[in-house]
Amino acid sequence: MRPQLKPDAELVLIEFIRQKVEESHGNGVVVGLSGGVDSALVTKLCVMAVGADKVSNLFLPSSTTPQVDRDHVKELAKQLGTKLTEIDITPLVEAYEKTLPAMARKELKGNVMARVRMTVLYHYAKMNFHLVMGTGNKSELLMGYFTKYGDGGCDYLPIGDLYKTEVWELARKLQLPDFVVDKIPSAGLWAGQTDEAEMGITYNELDQVLLGMEQSLSPEEIVKRTGVKLSLVQMVMVKHLTSVHKRKMPLIPKIGLRTIGLDWRE
Amino acid sequence: MRPQLKPDAELVLIEFIRQKVEESHGNGVVVGLSGGVDSALVTKLCVMAVGADKVSNLFLPSSTTPQVDRDHVKELAKQLGTKLTEIDITPLVEAYEKTLPAMARKELKGNVMARVRMTVLYHYAKMNFHLVMGTGNKSELLMGYFTKYGDGGCDYLPIGDLYKTEVWELARKLQLPDFVVDKIPSAGLWAGQTDEAEMGITYNELDQVLLGMEQSLSPEEIVKRTGVKLSLVQMVMVKHLTSVHKRKMPLIPKIGLRTIGLDWRE
Repeated sequence: MRPQLKPDAELVLIEFIRQKVEESHGNGVVVGLSGGVDSALVTKLCVMAVGADKVSNLFLPSSTTPQVDRDHVKELAKQLGTKLTEIDITPLVEAYEKTLPAMARKELKGNVMARVRMTVLYHYAKMNFHLVMGTGNKSELLMGYFTKYGDGGCDYLPIGDLYKTEVWELARKLQLPDFVVDKIPSAGLWAGQTDEAEMGITYNELDQVLLGMEQSLSPEEIVKRTGVKLSLVQMVMVKHLTSVHKRKMPLIPKIGLRTIGLDWRE
Repeated sequence: MRPQLKPDAELVLIEFIRQKVEESHGNGVVVGLSGGVDSALVTKLCVMAVGADKVSNLFLPSSTTPQVDRDHVKELAKQLGTKLTEIDITPLVEAYEKTLPAMARKELKGNVMARVRMTVLYHYAKMNFHLVMGTGNKSELLMGYFTKYGDGGCDYLPIGDLYKTEVWELARKLQLPDFVVDKIPSAGLWAGQTDEAEMGITYNELDQVLLGMEQSLSPEEIVKRTGVKLSLVQMVMVKHLTSVHKRKMPLIPKIGLRTIGLDWRE
């Protein structure tokens, strides 16, 4: 039991991106390029949808960004034909370090970095009449493995319905270079960070568990079908439940029954 | 025709806040206090719901914050009994000014300021196991008169179902000081900014128009019942329609029919 990439997945995604850019009446899209497979795939899909001249890449390295990612980002933008702008966020993060307490705690600093990147992406997007295309995939979205209003802050999530293992599959199918498809996944928020070590489960296992949850299977049934041990299945379920707030708009308490129309919900 | 504050509105809101703090298993809430009536009312409701010792106020002035707001914030926190922490965001905004182009454009700088404040609020919230209570009211939410992932970025919107004119009414009922209830509304993102001048309509008119829209009245019927001229009614409708994206989660293109459960929507 594992996620199966639909044969026409890229056609659905390309048409989605094309439509949303058209509806925006703007000049295209901006994508933060990190050197990882998610942002490379989103950029590739955007190029296929609206052409490279309407796709801007922003590279937003910090002091912890490894040289290999710097090289890969440049090589990717070159291969995909996009315009690449580099903004080193180090001085911005340092300003927060001077202003805020407890920035030595790496998860707090990581959240600041993610929100700084969102702020810079939206600045360029607004300057250039671009949409911000997010790079979150289904596995990390369902686990809440992202910063609320940081990397979670974007206009659309083109690969938000692709599990990470499907991202890899589609990246290969669309012939993204091996150096990006084979890279060990990392949020890159501190040196040595890897997604799988931080989450405590491999994406191969995680995606099977999430698929089982999507099919409303019991934890015991998921264990039986996937071979993943019960404590890990339960960990995934807890992370999913406790991150619901990251996948919803801020709740508004409704007063009485007057509010019936307009576009928000309870 | 104008919005009518429900007699028991504050009871609904207080119970909502109490429940959400309890569910969070955290230490309380943080509210950014600006000197305006919205954040004063949210703070007051939070104090009534969970007690002043569980309510932290952050005051995040910039170089354009008038002295009168600085005085009012201190007086409010004193009257309400909350802990007040002040962080001057000027050095943070200056770091963005050194790093990003076009920061002389006041709407771009305003967005950066709003996102810096969100980032600081969440930093303190995470440090102290607090929820971030947003201060958006129904009038500005429906107009999209806020920065996406800036002041729009919060965990709950306690007064999100109160029109601005109802905010004033409830603030008076709960005996907030005149200096805050009578203040001319401003987002405070640049000197001389006022909401009503920027939106091109008074809150008194706006709230009547929005109430008409909520009741699905035609533009002509709204004109007849409110006396607001047609061009203004149409302006409000356009702002509401073009800001839908600010009131929704980023859209995810769904591939096939597989996704049936889990907690997001098309």
